[in-house]
Amino acid sequence: MGRLMDETIKAIGPLDQAAMKAALERQDQLTKPLGSLGKLEELSIKVAGITGNPRPRIQKKAIIVMAADHGIVTQGVSLYPQEVTRQMVGGFLAGHAGINVLARHIGARVVVVDMGVVGGFEPHPDLICKMIDFGTRDMTQGPAMTREQAIVAIESGIEVLEGEIKKGLDIVGTGDMGIGNTTASSAICAAITGAPVSEVTGHGAGLGAEQWVAKVRMIEKALSVNRPDPADPIGVLAAVGGFEIGGLAGVMLGAAAHRVPVVIDGFISGAAALIASELCPRARDYFIAGHVSVERGHRVMMDFMKIEPLLNLNMRLGEGTGAALAMSIVEASTKILDEMITFAEAGVSEAGEKPR
Amino acid sequence: MGRLMDETIKAIGPLDQAAMKAALERQDQLTKPLGSLGKLEELSIKVAGITGNPRPRIQKKAIIVMAADHGIVTQGVSLYPQEVTRQMVGGFLAGHAGINVLARHIGARVVVVDMGVVGGFEPHPDLICKMIDFGTRDMTQGPAMTREQAIVAIESGIEVLEGEIKKGLDIVGTGDMGIGNTTASSAICAAITGAPVSEVTGHGAGLGAEQWVAKVRMIEKALSVNRPDPADPIGVLAAVGGFEIGGLAGVMLGAAAHRVPVVIDGFISGAAALIASELCPRARDYFIAGHVSVERGHRVMMDFMKIEPLLNLNMRLGEGTGAALAMSIVEASTKILDEMITFAEAGVSEAGEKPR
Repeated sequence: MGRLMDETIKAIGPLDQAAMKAALERQDQLTKPLGSLGKLEELSIKVAGITGNPRPRIQKKAIIVMAADHGIVTQGVSLYPQEVTRQMVGGFLAGHAGINVLARHIGARVVVVDMGVVGGFEPHPDLICKMIDFGTRDMTQGPAMTREQAIVAIESGIEVLEGEIKKGLDIVGTGDMGIGNTTASSAICAAITGAPVSEVTGHGAGLGAEQWVAKVRMIEKALSVNRPDPADPIGVLAAVGGFEIGGLAGVMLGAAAHRVPVVIDGFISGAAALIASELCPRARDYFIAGHVSVERGHRVMMDFMKIEPLLNLNMRLGEGTGAALAMSIVEASTKILDEMITFAEAGVSEAGEKPR
Repeated sequence: MGRLMDETIKAIGPLDQAAMKAALERQDQLTKPLGSLGKLEELSIKVAGITGNPRPRIQKKAIIVMAADHGIVTQGVSLYPQEVTRQMVGGFLAGHAGINVLARHIGARVVVVDMGVVGGFEPHPDLICKMIDFGTRDMTQGPAMTREQAIVAIESGIEVLEGEIKKGLDIVGTGDMGIGNTTASSAICAAITGAPVSEVTGHGAGLGAEQWVAKVRMIEKALSVNRPDPADPIGVLAAVGGFEIGGLAGVMLGAAAHRVPVVIDGFISGAAALIASELCPRARDYFIAGHVSVERGHRVMMDFMKIEPLLNLNMRLGEGTGAALAMSIVEASTKILDEMITFAEAGVSEAGEKPR
């Protein structure tokens, strides 16, 4: 118990400075004014440091979507009935959901994982079963899961990531599905960052003002019942987290250990990133935040981890949809680095050069 | 002279409200919380209104890159020698430049147009020649071009756009190349918006502080020598503009007249958009601003036209690179509208529905 997690964390090394230096030098010689491609240049250099390749290419792309249910929904924190989690997983497998559309658009595969959906599923060739339980327990009554379950969730995520590496993986995006999981994510955010619950709790899939107040109270109750220690991320995950959040934290740690860039989606993935980065601060170097979620609290998470998200498209769907759009931009950045040619190769005059 | 321009402007109608209403209704039935895909939803509805198709598809994509030289460069407003304009056009034709890489990434063709590059070109199968003169004249000594040339530039852009429509065009992006063209664009921005020159003049391809001061003085001199009337956009273009800027304004008007969404790149394309939207305010409804350029003054243009740019990636290359990345997101938005299925089709419970 915990050995795979410990070994994975131990395997996470620093970014490859030599590859980053070589990538920067090449960027500075390409036929464009210095720095004129802004974040595209930075991204390509980061991917060079992550992969250790000064001229990385991104071809094989996967978005890992993890689904689970949350005991807290019995407290009425969501507009949608719990069965929607299970129904949406069916949609992912059928290829009809938002993430399927955007994954096809960017040429990525969607990997669907059951981390603990109420009702379970018949075996399906495209569904990975890592089911821990039929949803977590109600966090207002005690811990959402046991400490052992929290570790199993993280290790399941590492296993899923390693399975995808065997199929070929140049970049991975994270996605989630779970009715009630903005509540769990706000609770994790408050527990780890210390921010007041009301400042990190949003309207989820569309709560009204009164429902929002009730959601804040439930989270405050859960935190006072469980008193999670911010220095113990496994304890935080066990107290107020979700199985899919633990799984995604495992995906992120696994990606960092295997030097694969990991594009973090929105609020729920952000909560998983908080768990992962508290377990191993160095893992953050392997994260690319795909977008800013509309969900209040996402910005607090990003600021806490000192990560600047790439896109701001007023999105709050989850599923990995924000990660998908960002992955395409990361891929574009590596193509710029690899396919553009230098001033010398092109015979183009550089800045300040006398006309020939 | 001017007839094609006048007819094109007359052909620009309002957005199709019925198509937009149908697109909005479909968005609200797709398997996601209401509004949760934010700008993707808005974009898809806008494209429906532009095309008149409630479920538009984007397949054929072109980025029109227009190049020309600027007489003002003799005043030392650019770090790069003038010959770079011509050299970079060679790079576009060879497929090595930034815009080629990003156009390939999004599956768009690059259409390269010589609007007036010093030295000219040998005939090339992929180069459209609309050359008006070997660069404009020095705007600090009098108008950059004649009023007739300004109209020819705009009409050339309309012709290029109409040529691309014959090849199939579901969306078009604008791009530019021209050493000195940030100077022309700042001058257009100041002339039309009335903002002080120093607030709309940036560092171009990388000017130092002293060179920037000199650039501001040159633009102020050009405006005091020519005294362009902000109510006369053709006069502004003739006084301080560029052939490629006029051409791009024509592309934008043509796109609006033919109900094709036009994705505006950065600062130079923004200057062209100002000319086009002053000629025909309704044309703005057909514009999608791809990104915020680092170039100071771009935000002033966008605010003046009341357009909110899609991306902010600290880019300032031009060539259509910002437009390319945004075009892919617009395409994604239409796929969401077309390919996702509704709650009813999927058998997924809606918000507030009792569990079945």
